[in-house]
Amino acid sequence: MLLGHSIINGEAREGTGAAFAGLEPATGASLEPMYHGASAEDVDLAANLAEDAFPIYSKLSGRQKGSFLRHIAAGIESIAAELVDRAHRETALPKPRLQGEVGRTANQLRLFAQAVEEGSWAMARIDPAEPNRTPMPRADIRSMLRPLGPVAVFGASNFPLAFSVAGGDTASAFAAGNPVIVKAHSAHPGTSEMVGQVICRSVRECGLHAGTFALIFGSGVQVGAALVQHPAVKAVGFTGSLSAGKSLMELAAARPEPIPCFMEMSSVNPLFVLPEALRTRPSQISNGLFGSFTMGVGQFCTKPGLVFLPQDEQSDALVAELVAQVEKAGASSMLTAGICKSYRSEVAQRKEHVSADLLAQPSSAEATNTTQVFPALFQISGSDLLSNPELEKEIFGPSTLIVRYANRQELIALAHALEGQLTATLHGTEADIADYADLIAILERKAGRLVVNGFPTGVEVCHAMVHGGPYPATSDSRHTSVGTQAIFRFARPVCYQDFPQAALPEELKDGNPLGILRLVNGAYTRNSL
Amino acid sequence: MLLGHSIINGEAREGTGAAFAGLEPATGASLEPMYHGASAEDVDLAANLAEDAFPIYSKLSGRQKGSFLRHIAAGIESIAAELVDRAHRETALPKPRLQGEVGRTANQLRLFAQAVEEGSWAMARIDPAEPNRTPMPRADIRSMLRPLGPVAVFGASNFPLAFSVAGGDTASAFAAGNPVIVKAHSAHPGTSEMVGQVICRSVRECGLHAGTFALIFGSGVQVGAALVQHPAVKAVGFTGSLSAGKSLMELAAARPEPIPCFMEMSSVNPLFVLPEALRTRPSQISNGLFGSFTMGVGQFCTKPGLVFLPQDEQSDALVAELVAQVEKAGASSMLTAGICKSYRSEVAQRKEHVSADLLAQPSSAEATNTTQVFPALFQISGSDLLSNPELEKEIFGPSTLIVRYANRQELIALAHALEGQLTATLHGTEADIADYADLIAILERKAGRLVVNGFPTGVEVCHAMVHGGPYPATSDSRHTSVGTQAIFRFARPVCYQDFPQAALPEELKDGNPLGILRLVNGAYTRNSL
Repeated sequence: MLLGHSIINGEAREGTGAAFAGLEPATGASLEPMYHGASAEDVDLAANLAEDAFPIYSKLSGRQKGSFLRHIAAGIESIAAELVDRAHRETALPKPRLQGEVGRTANQLRLFAQAVEEGSWAMARIDPAEPNRTPMPRADIRSMLRPLGPVAVFGASNFPLAFSVAGGDTASAFAAGNPVIVKAHSAHPGTSEMVGQVICRSVRECGLHAGTFALIFGSGVQVGAALVQHPAVKAVGFTGSLSAGKSLMELAAARPEPIPCFMEMSSVNPLFVLPEALRTRPSQISNGLFGSFTMGVGQFCTKPGLVFLPQDEQSDALVAELVAQVEKAGASSMLTAGICKSYRSEVAQRKEHVSADLLAQPSSAEATNTTQVFPALFQISGSDLLSNPELEKEIFGPSTLIVRYANRQELIALAHALEGQLTATLHGTEADIADYADLIAILERKAGRLVVNGFPTGVEVCHAMVHGGPYPATSDSRHTSVGTQAIFRFARPVCYQDFPQAALPEELKDGNPLGILRLVNGAYTRNSL
Repeated sequence: MLLGHSIINGEAREGTGAAFAGLEPATGASLEPMYHGASAEDVDLAANLAEDAFPIYSKLSGRQKGSFLRHIAAGIESIAAELVDRAHRETALPKPRLQGEVGRTANQLRLFAQAVEEGSWAMARIDPAEPNRTPMPRADIRSMLRPLGPVAVFGASNFPLAFSVAGGDTASAFAAGNPVIVKAHSAHPGTSEMVGQVICRSVRECGLHAGTFALIFGSGVQVGAALVQHPAVKAVGFTGSLSAGKSLMELAAARPEPIPCFMEMSSVNPLFVLPEALRTRPSQISNGLFGSFTMGVGQFCTKPGLVFLPQDEQSDALVAELVAQVEKAGASSMLTAGICKSYRSEVAQRKEHVSADLLAQPSSAEATNTTQVFPALFQISGSDLLSNPELEKEIFGPSTLIVRYANRQELIALAHALEGQLTATLHGTEADIADYADLIAILERKAGRLVVNGFPTGVEVCHAMVHGGPYPATSDSRHTSVGTQAIFRFARPVCYQDFPQAALPEELKDGNPLGILRLVNGAYTRNSL
């Protein structure tokens, strides 16, 4: 049952801040119950309890953390139907998509469970003592990754499940051994509370400290800022806008003790169509591209928002197909009125821009007054984009910008001018890919993930995934927020010199009781010492 | 031959900024030649050339990078005698110590060579395609660590070789595949130029791009700041004071594209003597402690600057031994007049402090007017330290503060109150260590390295070492600046989705031509696919 309350210390706690409700995007109708922003005292309480929980939670074995993560996954699946229903009402995302997201969220938790149960993620390293070394004996040096401390997680608007309360940030922070305090996204408070209740129950049923998890509601400016500035909070995971992410980064850096923060913010995900692919399968590319930039009403971080095509007739044909698809597209409802308003205003602004041409948008686009929007397709020349770099800015929603470049030299200049991206995509034959090695070398520095002959939307949750990239895609290109490597954000190496066996973590004991892979004297092995 | 010039584009380049010379610390005498700070144009040129070199250097194989690092190591050893002589004149550090540092520097380069030649450091991960998976096929996803881009390295005053021009930051940045621009520390310009010439020759003789390495001279405020702010620079490695490190952190965060920076700054390295150890080997501990806090004139980042002892007679006896040792200590010369002045003023300030007692300092301490200083031993009660946390501030030099705590509860409160540290040390029997698990759990969060029954000075360069720790010890607790894990600072994961074999890096090809350890479908293996 939804109460409209934060969850702190394993209990519902009524907020005293500004009231708000979940809204049906398409109608603007309020959904029960009302929510209240957390007070400064609530944030303080949640953070201090997380700090209290840390010494206990951080010492759990991989097996114990795995059980906890699996318990949450099962709990989410057990309420899948209600969850999908509520999330659908709060976000207007289609139910099949949300059903998929339930599965993705549960599988993500189980993938992290598997990683910590196996245990080698902790990068255990042992350089045994060399008492007879000259001129100086060597001490026994061992190290492994240990959790950072309480982690603040900000729910994302566009993934009410997979990147919210029990999403990738929470799963990876828990997996690394950290208590988590989630600030729910205000666009789906009911969905957030339902998942928060599941985690709260898992904390209780797994016998963990009640401070291991908290869920708080409220605005980013007040509640979010208080959380990032709290001395007990040791890291931040965030998915959202560039402006909000930057504000939190600045707060994190200005603390008496600056803390690492992992903000996933803004990306236009450039897509390049290379000559032979353009010649051999233009329709396949145009269909896939249309599907990708309009999928989820263009509200994916990996939506392709810049498409590079040469100035030739084959490209004209591809663009014509895309125009036809956009023109017959229907309207879809965006996640929130605010997001819809931004989309409309950014599209309107682009229409006014002297260098960008609107190629297609269904004519009724201006008529709607709900959160329904239509796709918009723009085009610009490569040289105009180079002189108007503000047009590379992400428009969150179903819009993309075709960039027609004059020649290869201009293409390379355009690639060099790109900001940091989550993804970059190439459509090409093997010969194309070989021929454009220079372009690929540039894109390797611009993006966290390079995709060949596919589309960037759809981010696989797996071991090798990198959902990250240079600023402004994220605040720190050295990390991913999707996949098991996300755990590395929330851990730090700790070194134990000449420790007695009994005082060492299991991971570092001579006998290797966990059977994990370790780097011993520079060689990887699962053997005991 | 020393020219007094920066090295940019493989050539000596005369600076146009403020002139300065290396100084003999003990006499203040100038050493030939004169040096000049680099101009803004020099910084720009060096950074742009590093950017030009990146596409080439970053694609070298592990074997090629290894040859380069080994070439530098051999070059340094080949001029060991001149290098030790010059470094001794510039730093007043004893020649045997500097001889050791030459060996350490060369071995450090070779350890990184070994790591990149072996190749598994790159954390290659492969999740092969599953074309028949339902409801959605899985793409082929592969990822590995790739270099960040040009790295700015700041030489340290206290390790003219092992943490300067060809020190750990440079070695790890090169190993990861990044060009490096070093700003030499102004306290040992001749030593820096000699090592810079070695690297420059290695760049040439290994056939690398001349932009792969540059050495520039000048002040941190001007030249250092310009370097950190240059758009081509993608990461910073720094060892120095908290104030200088913080200034550079702020510049790095305020860039249009913020970049990661790894500052090693300030640590007092608390040392705890537990009851049984205190009872059974007080003299051994007092001897070791005296050696550790006065070693290198107390100018180590890991100098134990806080020593926790109970208020009992056994501690009195240990302290009495320490007092006797300090009182008969001679004077030693510090690295620079500036460092000496700070040491004297901080010691004088502590003498004035109402809560701290000076236990011992040879009486002639005030008489010297060169850079020679004497050790100083202070004592304070635990409760006074808790109410005067400013006394936990690092004094760089041969001084330490004994903290006498009233009881275990106060000890735990003192441990909780500590800031982030590079190290924390415990002297105790196995029973002590087991008994003080609560203390150790606190220290695991406060320090990068925990030492049992040893002393924190002397940082082994090996695979498991962690020379890092929470702020203010470093700017980012998730990294080490010593040991092979230092390479992770200068690399980021890049993901390749559905790439043709020919376009993949060797590390990710099906056949595993490098024979490295990879995570394939969640399992570690050196097998081909």
